[in-house]
Amino acid sequence: MESELRYERLAGELASLIEQGVLVHGDRLPSVRRLADERRLSVSTVVQAMRRLELRGLVEARPQSGYFVCRPPLPHREPAARSTPEAASSVDISQRLVRLMQAGLQPGVVPLAAALPANSLLPIAALQRLYAGVARRYPRLLEGGSHVDIDSPQLVRQLVRRSLAWGGPLAADEIVITNSCTEALDLCLRTVTRPGDTVAVESPAYYLMLQLLETLGLKALEIPTDPRTGMSVEALELATRQGGVAAVLLVSNGSNPLGCLMPDDRKRALAALTASRGIPLIEDDVYGDLHAGEQRPWPIKAFDRDGNVMLCASFSKSLSPSLRIGFVAAGQRARAVALRKMVGSGGTSPVTQAVLAEYLASTAYERHLRKLRRAYRDQVAAMQAAVARYFPAETRIAQPQAGYVLWVELPEGIDCTACLTQALAAQVAYVPGELFSASGMYRNCLRLNCGNPHTPAIEDAVRRLGAIFSAVG
Amino acid sequence: MESELRYERLAGELASLIEQGVLVHGDRLPSVRRLADERRLSVSTVVQAMRRLELRGLVEARPQSGYFVCRPPLPHREPAARSTPEAASSVDISQRLVRLMQAGLQPGVVPLAAALPANSLLPIAALQRLYAGVARRYPRLLEGGSHVDIDSPQLVRQLVRRSLAWGGPLAADEIVITNSCTEALDLCLRTVTRPGDTVAVESPAYYLMLQLLETLGLKALEIPTDPRTGMSVEALELATRQGGVAAVLLVSNGSNPLGCLMPDDRKRALAALTASRGIPLIEDDVYGDLHAGEQRPWPIKAFDRDGNVMLCASFSKSLSPSLRIGFVAAGQRARAVALRKMVGSGGTSPVTQAVLAEYLASTAYERHLRKLRRAYRDQVAAMQAAVARYFPAETRIAQPQAGYVLWVELPEGIDCTACLTQALAAQVAYVPGELFSASGMYRNCLRLNCGNPHTPAIEDAVRRLGAIFSAVG
Repeated sequence: MESELRYERLAGELASLIEQGVLVHGDRLPSVRRLADERRLSVSTVVQAMRRLELRGLVEARPQSGYFVCRPPLPHREPAARSTPEAASSVDISQRLVRLMQAGLQPGVVPLAAALPANSLLPIAALQRLYAGVARRYPRLLEGGSHVDIDSPQLVRQLVRRSLAWGGPLAADEIVITNSCTEALDLCLRTVTRPGDTVAVESPAYYLMLQLLETLGLKALEIPTDPRTGMSVEALELATRQGGVAAVLLVSNGSNPLGCLMPDDRKRALAALTASRGIPLIEDDVYGDLHAGEQRPWPIKAFDRDGNVMLCASFSKSLSPSLRIGFVAAGQRARAVALRKMVGSGGTSPVTQAVLAEYLASTAYERHLRKLRRAYRDQVAAMQAAVARYFPAETRIAQPQAGYVLWVELPEGIDCTACLTQALAAQVAYVPGELFSASGMYRNCLRLNCGNPHTPAIEDAVRRLGAIFSAVG
Repeated sequence: MESELRYERLAGELASLIEQGVLVHGDRLPSVRRLADERRLSVSTVVQAMRRLELRGLVEARPQSGYFVCRPPLPHREPAARSTPEAASSVDISQRLVRLMQAGLQPGVVPLAAALPANSLLPIAALQRLYAGVARRYPRLLEGGSHVDIDSPQLVRQLVRRSLAWGGPLAADEIVITNSCTEALDLCLRTVTRPGDTVAVESPAYYLMLQLLETLGLKALEIPTDPRTGMSVEALELATRQGGVAAVLLVSNGSNPLGCLMPDDRKRALAALTASRGIPLIEDDVYGDLHAGEQRPWPIKAFDRDGNVMLCASFSKSLSPSLRIGFVAAGQRARAVALRKMVGSGGTSPVTQAVLAEYLASTAYERHLRKLRRAYRDQVAAMQAAVARYFPAETRIAQPQAGYVLWVELPEGIDCTACLTQALAAQVAYVPGELFSASGMYRNCLRLNCGNPHTPAIEDAVRRLGAIFSAVG
């Protein structure tokens, strides 16, 4: 802990010298040996500090020569909110998306498409031990009794406990355990809509949410969304004035792809607006634990006085997608959601619920989250720097407040869907912007996954992408 | 193995003496010691044989006196197929069912309601070892990589291998792994229907299937069903002549609640009829491995030449409900089902898929099934005998060909829904017949779970039920 603080401090000091322009592009940093002597630090502490600066894209190691300050990223501009069509759109993206995702999973392709974390960042060994221990200690979990249809009280208790940090507590009896956050969203949508209904979503919106609307026969009404502060409450107010919106579906903390974080006053206003108009609000908080700032942001649920918000989340982004456990705190609609879960898929794995409950009961999750948040901050910063270095000059780059995806807006006229073929030929995958819109917006945008440590291979992949876009731009 | 055969042989001989009337009600059997001497068997072998006869309801132990032949069951009549309404019905059973199931799970209530197996019959220790071993040996299963969204090739291979015994092989690329058979049915229904559509079902039909139709806004068209040979193909032919039926949903092997088994020529005719009319057939084969006869019956899928049958199953009834793994072999609709699964709930637990694949790859499952089938045959026979002993004389009792539930038809005028209150007060639960119909049929019927060894407590519970029904009849 102490040595962690030391290298953090050194890295921070050097970073601020670079950001202030005291050290500039091409400057050689003092040698590791010298820094260690002068600062009375161990060599390994200095090396760790350098490694962090490398990951943030601020310095690069040159063989036999030491560390040098990188070319500074251009002061990058952020994307702005866009106006959206007034009418709701049918959704039709699934087939394109499936082909794309399969192409992006070919061996050798640099994985900048799917929002997946690096395996090296996950607590695999701890989960292995927990699975083995739980299976050994609790044979009852493998029995066929009635407990199968009942959510683990231990896991529900841990979720309630954690919710204290999110403006909670949630009520234990409003929680339904699911197989994923996706299943939670699906259950909520099926509970409050009928095919043909219209659902208000962010613009851009996470493509899986659009796919959900597609498979349920729902229309998407895209609401202008600020890349910093999220869905426009004013626009939603206008759009719902005449009725006709069956639900609102959004991510208030670290929306995918923008990474925006809604300020508390907006969350409060949104909770009040939807409750007053009787429109159920479905909130996905899967990135809430991966906030870039110091404080764990609250979900909209924390500002809900009416049981109208249905908070969905999972541990796929923060622990491991392999667990297949999510949940929903469904407020006044908890019984309807629970019935739909029981009828439509039955209970959720008792073994995995116990594994997750034991992990959350320990202090391991908090330690793991601190590590993960630091890594994602660095990886996003390094990706931003790389994009600024290699992409066309007019490129706008988002400033995500949570999560590990990066939204990039290229100059008008560059068609990211068309360029994807070239990118895949150059062994790089990304998600083209149009998949985040039901109405065909965002063709000049793309989303990059920053879930992996920013290696030279990733840096080079971004360079190749930049060359492709510069050639067509 | 050898000693198993010996006690089986002795039990079989004694049973046939009882069934032939050589030994009659009240006769004392030769003592265990004498039988062991005469037959040159060990005492424990003879005790095992007696225990089997007890479980079948043929003999009873009297303290200090030995084993005596029980009162023979009345030669019981079986229920007959009933005619059904011509129009499809909206379904509205969920709320009643939830209350009922919760009441049936109270401590102290004899569990004759939910179709759950006794834990003592399940291979819990083997599953514990497999979970621990899989978690230790395959850390990759706990990672966050792209494998999460891909079904385990090992498990798919085992399913294909097993399908050779069901008239298979299934094609690996038509299989979608799910979280349960229920989820498989839900995915199939959502793939081939829209709310307001009509689905043809058996009559009586499994209440969970009716609930699925209810939550999806579908109507149920009840087709007359023979308690021995299943859904009437002739009636279905008539009902689908004018169009308007979006899907057929049934259990061809061991239908719940009747336990009927459709003969092969009916299965072939049903596959041909539905294919020729373009009506998707969704088949639940969750009881196929629990056949009472010698041969593993084939599903309708085995007679399907058109990819029109969607075969759904799981290992909840034959292995443990805790696994939460099912599958569907969806034929020509496999890609649509797979997409819906991915969008609506994501991948299925990689750890549990590996556990199940390893179990199926061993010889343990076949040994386990032999034991389970024998137990269920005995338990069903004992329950039939008890019902014949204690229920009103005009009672009809089904003769299930697979599975472990027993359908009982009381004389007209006895209202099993009304009697349930008294039954619960007497600490016995069952499922009243009306929950197996969307149109309110079967109020004089009920379903009994035979998943538990037929203990004196269960015998006495059936006696208490019989007293309640006799009092109102």
